[in-house]
Amino acid sequence: MAKAFDLQTSPGHLLRRAQQYANDLYAQEAGSNGLTPRQFAVLHAVDLHEGLSQTALVRETGIDRSTLADMISRMLRKDLLARKRTDEDARANSVRITPAGRKALRAAMPAVTKSEQKILEILPARVRTEFTRGLSLIAQAAMESEMAKENGDGTKPKRGRKKR
Amino acid sequence: MAKAFDLQTSPGHLLRRAQQYANDLYAQEAGSNGLTPRQFAVLHAVDLHEGLSQTALVRETGIDRSTLADMISRMLRKDLLARKRTDEDARANSVRITPAGRKALRAAMPAVTKSEQKILEILPARVRTEFTRGLSLIAQAAMESEMAKENGDGTKPKRGRKKR
Repeated sequence: MAKAFDLQTSPGHLLRRAQQYANDLYAQEAGSNGLTPRQFAVLHAVDLHEGLSQTALVRETGIDRSTLADMISRMLRKDLLARKRTDEDARANSVRITPAGRKALRAAMPAVTKSEQKILEILPARVRTEFTRGLSLIAQAAMESEMAKENGDGTKPKRGRKKR
Repeated sequence: MAKAFDLQTSPGHLLRRAQQYANDLYAQEAGSNGLTPRQFAVLHAVDLHEGLSQTALVRETGIDRSTLADMISRMLRKDLLARKRTDEDARANSVRITPAGRKALRAAMPAVTKSEQKILEILPARVRTEFTRGLSLIAQAAMESEMAKENGDGTKPKRGRKKR
C-alpha cells in the first residue's frame, strides 16, 4: 500500500528535516550554553518591540501561547526578561529585555547568522531568494491562520492566506 | 542592538514556522487519534523496507537515535510495529509493520497528502517544484552530516554537502 508516496519528496517530511538541520547547525555554532533558537526569537522580538503583549509575541514568534508562557517564566527566572509593570501599562503580561538578555542576544547573533548562511549555501545561489520567499509565504499563512483563531474566527481559513 | 537582523526574513525562523504550520495542517486533517507525522514517517519507512536497521531508520526518517528508540517502544506497545527476530536476522532491533500499523498508515495517508497539498498551494505554482527541491537539498545535507557522525567521522562536515 501507499507505495506511491515518497518521504524523500514529501514537503512535510522535508520541512521537518530541513528545520532540524537548521537547529543542529545553530547548536553547533552556539554551543550548549547559548540561547535556544526560540529563546533567541523571543528576546529579539521583545528587544525590538518592548512591551509587546503576549498575543503580539505569539504572532511575532510563531510560538504557541502555552509554550510561550512557559518560556517566558523560565526566561524571567534566568533574568533574561523582566516584568514590565507601570501605572500606564495595564498589560500584566508584558515583558522587557534585561541587560543580561541583551547580552545573550548579542552573543547568539553570530551563531544565528552563520548557521543561516550555511543553510542557504546548500542551495544554488540563484534560488536562495526565491526559497526564502517561499518559506516566508508559508510563515505568513501560518500567522494569518493563527490570527483568525485568536480573533475567535471559528471558520477554518480557506487558504490560510490573505492579502495584508 | 542587532536591529539589522529580521526574524521575518530569517531562514531559520521561517523554516521553524513553516514546519509548525505543516504540522498544524496535518493535525487538522488527521484529527487527534491519528498518527503523528513522525510515526507516519517511521511506519512508512518500515513498510517500504522491512527489517531496516535502526541506523538505516535514523537515516531514512531523520529522527535521532534516542527519540527513535522511544518512538519504536511506544509503537511496539501500540501494536503498530512488531519485533522481527528470525534465525537469519541477527539485527535484534529490526522491526516489521503489523496489520494494525498498516491500517494506521493507510488511514493517515489522506491527511498527509491533503496537508502537503495545502502547503504547496500557498506558493505560486511556478516555484513549487524548485521549493521542494531546495528542501530536499537541505534534507540531503542533513543526512550526509548524520552519516558522517554515525561513521565516527569526527571532523565536522565542511559544507554538510557532497555529491552522492
